[in-house]
Amino acid sequence: MPEKTSHKSDIEIAQESKMLPISHIAGLLGIDEEDWEPYGRYKAKLSLDLFQKLETKQEGTVVLVTSINPTPAGEGKSTVTVGLGQAFNRIGKQTIVALREPSLGPSMGIKGGAAGGGYSQVMPMEEINLHFTGDIHAITTANNALAALIDNHIHQGNALHIDPRKIVWKRALDMNDRALRRIVVGLGGPLQGVPREDGFDITVASEIMAIFCLAVSVKDLKSRLSKMVVAYDYSDSPVTAGDLGAEGALTLLLKDALMPNLVQTLENTPAIIHGGPFANIAHGCNSIIATKLASKLSDIVVTESGFGADLGAEKFLNIKARYGGIKPGAVVVVATVRALKMHGGVPKDELSVLDLPALKRGMPNLAKHLDTLKQFGVPAVVAVNRFVNDDQAEVDYILEWCKSEGVQAAEADVWADGGAGGEELARTVLNVMESEDNNYKPLYELDMPLDEKIKTICQRVYGAEDVQFSPKAIKQIEQFTSLGWGNLPVCMAKTQYSLSDDPKKLGRPEKFIVAIRELRASVGAGFIVALTGDVMTMPGLPKRPAAMDMDVTEEGKAAGLF
Amino acid sequence: MPEKTSHKSDIEIAQESKMLPISHIAGLLGIDEEDWEPYGRYKAKLSLDLFQKLETKQEGTVVLVTSINPTPAGEGKSTVTVGLGQAFNRIGKQTIVALREPSLGPSMGIKGGAAGGGYSQVMPMEEINLHFTGDIHAITTANNALAALIDNHIHQGNALHIDPRKIVWKRALDMNDRALRRIVVGLGGPLQGVPREDGFDITVASEIMAIFCLAVSVKDLKSRLSKMVVAYDYSDSPVTAGDLGAEGALTLLLKDALMPNLVQTLENTPAIIHGGPFANIAHGCNSIIATKLASKLSDIVVTESGFGADLGAEKFLNIKARYGGIKPGAVVVVATVRALKMHGGVPKDELSVLDLPALKRGMPNLAKHLDTLKQFGVPAVVAVNRFVNDDQAEVDYILEWCKSEGVQAAEADVWADGGAGGEELARTVLNVMESEDNNYKPLYELDMPLDEKIKTICQRVYGAEDVQFSPKAIKQIEQFTSLGWGNLPVCMAKTQYSLSDDPKKLGRPEKFIVAIRELRASVGAGFIVALTGDVMTMPGLPKRPAAMDMDVTEEGKAAGLF
Repeated sequence: MPEKTSHKSDIEIAQESKMLPISHIAGLLGIDEEDWEPYGRYKAKLSLDLFQKLETKQEGTVVLVTSINPTPAGEGKSTVTVGLGQAFNRIGKQTIVALREPSLGPSMGIKGGAAGGGYSQVMPMEEINLHFTGDIHAITTANNALAALIDNHIHQGNALHIDPRKIVWKRALDMNDRALRRIVVGLGGPLQGVPREDGFDITVASEIMAIFCLAVSVKDLKSRLSKMVVAYDYSDSPVTAGDLGAEGALTLLLKDALMPNLVQTLENTPAIIHGGPFANIAHGCNSIIATKLASKLSDIVVTESGFGADLGAEKFLNIKARYGGIKPGAVVVVATVRALKMHGGVPKDELSVLDLPALKRGMPNLAKHLDTLKQFGVPAVVAVNRFVNDDQAEVDYILEWCKSEGVQAAEADVWADGGAGGEELARTVLNVMESEDNNYKPLYELDMPLDEKIKTICQRVYGAEDVQFSPKAIKQIEQFTSLGWGNLPVCMAKTQYSLSDDPKKLGRPEKFIVAIRELRASVGAGFIVALTGDVMTMPGLPKRPAAMDMDVTEEGKAAGLF
Repeated sequence: MPEKTSHKSDIEIAQESKMLPISHIAGLLGIDEEDWEPYGRYKAKLSLDLFQKLETKQEGTVVLVTSINPTPAGEGKSTVTVGLGQAFNRIGKQTIVALREPSLGPSMGIKGGAAGGGYSQVMPMEEINLHFTGDIHAITTANNALAALIDNHIHQGNALHIDPRKIVWKRALDMNDRALRRIVVGLGGPLQGVPREDGFDITVASEIMAIFCLAVSVKDLKSRLSKMVVAYDYSDSPVTAGDLGAEGALTLLLKDALMPNLVQTLENTPAIIHGGPFANIAHGCNSIIATKLASKLSDIVVTESGFGADLGAEKFLNIKARYGGIKPGAVVVVATVRALKMHGGVPKDELSVLDLPALKRGMPNLAKHLDTLKQFGVPAVVAVNRFVNDDQAEVDYILEWCKSEGVQAAEADVWADGGAGGEELARTVLNVMESEDNNYKPLYELDMPLDEKIKTICQRVYGAEDVQFSPKAIKQIEQFTSLGWGNLPVCMAKTQYSLSDDPKKLGRPEKFIVAIRELRASVGAGFIVALTGDVMTMPGLPKRPAAMDMDVTEEGKAAGLF
């Protein structure tokens, strides 16, 4: 086990690091000066013209990082993604890390950025965690421009006969603000619009964010924006953004944001950070444009998806990869001693105590995720992400277990050691990609009926015995199918803590039935959301928000962010 | 009269122009590479460290551009500001144009940017009119972070005893959205916050925007943010952002935005565009930081203020110049044949018809503004901003009138001819600054009581006979004075179309009484707003919003914006 070289905080490590000018990083990737634009000294936006210029260049391999069902603190998936990218570069493979953009709102609530950790971070982490290059602000603006156009349409005569009780488009802010979850707008008399119930979602839950991440071009973006269903009219027919003539303006508002953002890791590995949709009501992956462009610019792209493999990897493999024409080379499943012990029944505050029997009891959770990836036909590697208090016997147990199961695995110590701590993992991934067959294909065909798609995911990915549809869901499946949306993929909204829809069922639950409460149509994004319970699309702030500690130092530096 | 050289649209002229790389513009101003950061190829943010580096450098002269009471279409103040800056550079005076940042929301409603026009525009105009460098988005975010902290504070136990009926802080969006004017938030039961009445303002109406433009440093910004009154408690004592501990987080959210934005005009004159508060409930000027920095970097700074001289120039001279320690060298009053004829009683659709008697009847409006500037002790120049349909006899009449009044004046043909069309004006301004005494001082001292300050402005600037305070206003003056806010300057919210508070009283109304309906305390910004009528702080969209025409062309260019 490598010695822990540091107990510095993320921001201390970040502020001590030496970034290269972004022109240097762009140069490393062979990008001409005309094909990127600087945003400050250490951020750049990449031109979409690069796709045409690189048309004949072979695409590099996409490696997806996912995890077992996580603890509330997370398994360090972003940290492993960054560290693995750094490791590949160290062993001579030109590699780009492709991550999601962090949402600013939540950082007002709970400390902790979303830019990796320790010696595996992307930089400049303060800016990435604050406004970055403004992409999320552009999405907020587009979301709310559409909302204003809807209410204005009704106020100005309602030629489309929109039923104000059936507006499904919500307003959005990149903020944790529970008071905006349920509101009434349009009060104050005939000059102030038409009163109706409404609500705000956090911006990353906006369908526009999902579209932003699934569009393959500006043209595709506009076409998807046009298809978004914003309301139903008095005859229950859907009204789209296109019906309102809004898609041109929304595309204009998003045009510059659609250019992927180039930054670097602590070890100067190029990183592209672009888009970041929710992993429950959306698919939880960075943009297709960023992933594809990264694959054109490097041998290997290391990217991640949200939550555990039952949600994130499933959606990556069934939705993103399908729409993007991406064939992943391998999937890395991040496991931690702590999370496996939790699945073995250990309470949260005792996870640091050596407990091999509990660890053993937790292994079926990992086993199920590996089984799922086998069904997708994609080679898998287990990464044991090392935490400071892990006992070597525990780490060894997981590695031995993998060996006995015929699954390749490696320890990752990237938090403490950066890329050096991920070299063994990187070599293992390369080895797996060379030695194992890759028969990746989505788990279902698009012409499968919606209820069958949902059953397929619940039974084959979650291990459920059956699925129970509420009367509302049954009606919606009929309605959506008759509207021609039956051939869309399904996006499951489920707890990330369990393979089942009950967050308390840890390990590998069996004989459970998944209850589908309700469906939502994200026709522009191109999926039907199936909700298994309440999904919070606008978080709240805690009793003592992290904002209380934020500040700017006398020297003008960010403080209290992480 | 110079021939009109073009009837091209603003966007056509802009897209045909040749911009220099922003590094070149920064170089022209002698700014070291370490003191600016690129945002794309043609925008940069300037470091506030420049103030220290340029501490011993003498400040250039600030020339303020204002106007008579405008027509609804405006008198081309921004166009004259840009054209005059270009003209100064043509005659050998190193000059920077300092403008306000356009708000994105209104451009969804009515076509027309805010970046000058014709051959006197700032560039890149599409980006400036869309998200620019994200400053307004940062202000929106800070505004709404504070709102979320207020509601969260109440939800989490309300230790400060905030009365939910007396929250004066509103949420904000950079959008024209009438449905958000009056809303109810916090609905849905005990987990969703505390229900209360609320509303959204357009972001430029946020007190944070006013503070952003009046702060002289990051430290001052934080101190002003801390003083903002957000609510009153159950004992009617004010509750501030500082009481909530929010000022550090808000400062962090605004830190990068506070760096002024460097761009260029069509003739490559440097332009600094930064901040843009409302000209009614706020002071309507670009940031002090931008104006001061521009004056450190050039011989002359040409800047503008909102609406006519009764509002914009008055606030520049009584509020901005006072807080910024700025001594303006001269004030240019933009007058147009059209507006003067309107003041002479000509209806809106007949303004293109030659009508010298009407023009003559309209002159007292100009005369009053010149009288006001005399009271401030600052030299004034009249600029007759040429429109395509103006008759030469009309232009000559105005110039003759000025001569007979002993006021220097020049024609400006900057829309059609750019800087060349403003050279005579530039020479006239230089001449006035050399030949006339400058005894600038604010119209009132800060220790004057609030009601006296209001009377001073109404009588000496508007020409009112008297002021009538509503019972509410009288009570508020007492309350604000007892809270220690009596020594703040006053910010008048009044119609821009008339010298009086009645938009229908054109020309130079007399014997009118200004009714003060209500006051608002912008303690962070550092002024007390006096409202003379309803002020719309959240505009609405028209029946056919301009957004309907917006698009991105096949080649990826902005379309339909202007």
